[in-house]
Amino acid sequence: MLKRTLDLATNGGFLKKTVLPNYNIDQFKIGPLGLLLCQNINTEWLYHTLINKELTVCPNEGDIDNTYNFVKILCSSKLPFGITDVNKQKKSFTTDEIVEYYKNASKGEKVSFENLLRHEEDVFLKFTIFVSPSDSTQMFHQWQKQRRIWFRKFSAAPGRYLLSDIKNVENTIQTVDITAKYSWGTQLLETITLNREDKNFTNQQLEFKERKFVTAHTITSQINLPTIFLNTICDAYQEPVFQDKVRPMFHFHRKLAPFKLSFAMTGSSQAITKELEDLALYLCKQLRENHVSTLYLPSSSRNTLEAQYKQYDQLGIPYTVVLNERTLNDGVANLRSRDTTLKEQVHITELVTYVEQLFRNY
Amino acid sequence: MLKRTLDLATNGGFLKKTVLPNYNIDQFKIGPLGLLLCQNINTEWLYHTLINKELTVCPNEGDIDNTYNFVKILCSSKLPFGITDVNKQKKSFTTDEIVEYYKNASKGEKVSFENLLRHEEDVFLKFTIFVSPSDSTQMFHQWQKQRRIWFRKFSAAPGRYLLSDIKNVENTIQTVDITAKYSWGTQLLETITLNREDKNFTNQQLEFKERKFVTAHTITSQINLPTIFLNTICDAYQEPVFQDKVRPMFHFHRKLAPFKLSFAMTGSSQAITKELEDLALYLCKQLRENHVSTLYLPSSSRNTLEAQYKQYDQLGIPYTVVLNERTLNDGVANLRSRDTTLKEQVHITELVTYVEQLFRNY
Repeated sequence: MLKRTLDLATNGGFLKKTVLPNYNIDQFKIGPLGLLLCQNINTEWLYHTLINKELTVCPNEGDIDNTYNFVKILCSSKLPFGITDVNKQKKSFTTDEIVEYYKNASKGEKVSFENLLRHEEDVFLKFTIFVSPSDSTQMFHQWQKQRRIWFRKFSAAPGRYLLSDIKNVENTIQTVDITAKYSWGTQLLETITLNREDKNFTNQQLEFKERKFVTAHTITSQINLPTIFLNTICDAYQEPVFQDKVRPMFHFHRKLAPFKLSFAMTGSSQAITKELEDLALYLCKQLRENHVSTLYLPSSSRNTLEAQYKQYDQLGIPYTVVLNERTLNDGVANLRSRDTTLKEQVHITELVTYVEQLFRNY
Repeated sequence: MLKRTLDLATNGGFLKKTVLPNYNIDQFKIGPLGLLLCQNINTEWLYHTLINKELTVCPNEGDIDNTYNFVKILCSSKLPFGITDVNKQKKSFTTDEIVEYYKNASKGEKVSFENLLRHEEDVFLKFTIFVSPSDSTQMFHQWQKQRRIWFRKFSAAPGRYLLSDIKNVENTIQTVDITAKYSWGTQLLETITLNREDKNFTNQQLEFKERKFVTAHTITSQINLPTIFLNTICDAYQEPVFQDKVRPMFHFHRKLAPFKLSFAMTGSSQAITKELEDLALYLCKQLRENHVSTLYLPSSSRNTLEAQYKQYDQLGIPYTVVLNERTLNDGVANLRSRDTTLKEQVHITELVTYVEQLFRNY
């Protein structure tokens, strides 16, 4: 299953495979469509943390002290507030370590997302909430719940996301893990930590005046972007049966899918096909002007409708606009949903507005 | 002027100042609100390149060959198509070079955006269009025009952006610069290059079958994110007169502003102020749920309305929701525009929809 997922992802440009010289061993890196997927994941993470409903949050890069003081002043020294942080770290493995890993992996041992993308830089997205001691336990539980909802929201199989029990690491530190269950094992995605004495800050920094002076607690939450990227791919992979054949495909959530829409065309003559292509290009431009990432393939009209659907399903595109001779006469197109395979009729003049509605909600 | 701009930007958290040890020299880095601004600039750049109206475009990181082949196959070997690329480069200056620079800068010489942010990593955003030789000249001119429009669109003084004449670098290469005029000199922002024999790709890679076999031309366009960031700050800085006093402020375009909305409150008693604060928090949550970056300051109700406006203007926030006792009775709030200083009445139940409309267009 994992192998088939990785194969389909490589064909679709989500991953790219390079061969380790002299060893004949495949290595994976993030491919062009994978980068689009990562971008969308990052955006949704920022929507959940940086534009957080409950808190004023500022981003940080590098040394955190300056940012911390800025946010503290901005919030007039009132808790709670938050800081997001991005830490990039190059991994350094020796060639021997890599060969060792792949030997184990070929026996089906130690498969983990970190290891699969061991040639990619780690990109840790970290979110820290500074909170009053009296609210910290409640906030800790609330944030666990919200993070699990975040994962479930984008998932094709929400049941796979689980919260671990609370672990007491030290007297002052508690952690909870969010994991995803797969047929080949359980994958750790995120660790949420409640720290009652955060040593990254001085006591003076964490001192706040409420009714009396208190020391702020911190709740931190950290994900590794390449890990979440691989999780999104594995989560979305499905093998439904179409016309007695298995058709592997990606059920990406419409907010995460690299392309939101594509075009399928079918014409009986070359002249009609040409007209349909021009119409598709026109609609594609309109959608892109509205910042909807749309795929227009010049070749698509040469294939059967089913072959076109298959290609788009493999790229995980949630909707396909189907244009045919009737569209040229009365302006009505069909909008095919990847998930239901059902079609709705939409007039082409209303397509942009309708698509905007479709993609507005989660 | 430049000094006053940098001071206001430092106070507002767009820049942060650190002192070079032993030399008593100020150094600038990008601050927390500056990171938000960079994010928004990056998003708008992606909207202009990656979701390009006319072309299918894929992003790349690192080695470009794999991505190039993927896009070429995706587009069935039909021109034109495009690739975006991000290159990060650490600058390496010796301490002596830095001291030398600051000595010159204090005499007013060699002020350039690159030098001001010499402690920040360069982030080159590059966009390459692969185009048929017969269309390349037209496309080159069209892209120049579009890029200039992009800069003018976000500017408080669109007239400052100029296209240079076309320079012939070699027989096969032509370049055009986009520059911005400031009182202290002219700043280079972007170079657009038409290359008729791009040596980054092999002849075989660039060969396409149209009516006969042709070699694709490339048009590349490159900006440095920290440079564009500083340009956005300097472009937005203005010193209008309010009530006989100069009030320096940032006129950020509403698509680029780190915070889109803020709240100003004025109540005659403590009980009313508390109610207004609760209302502001409620509206703030609603806006943030719609991904509108909103600033709520707990302290604001303690100041006069004018002092609140002044603070928000200095952070470049385009709109402020003004809540007063009347709002508690009839639900009507005032929406103050930073640029016109005029207020419009909006019912608080319609605020979210209205704000969405305001921020939809450019």
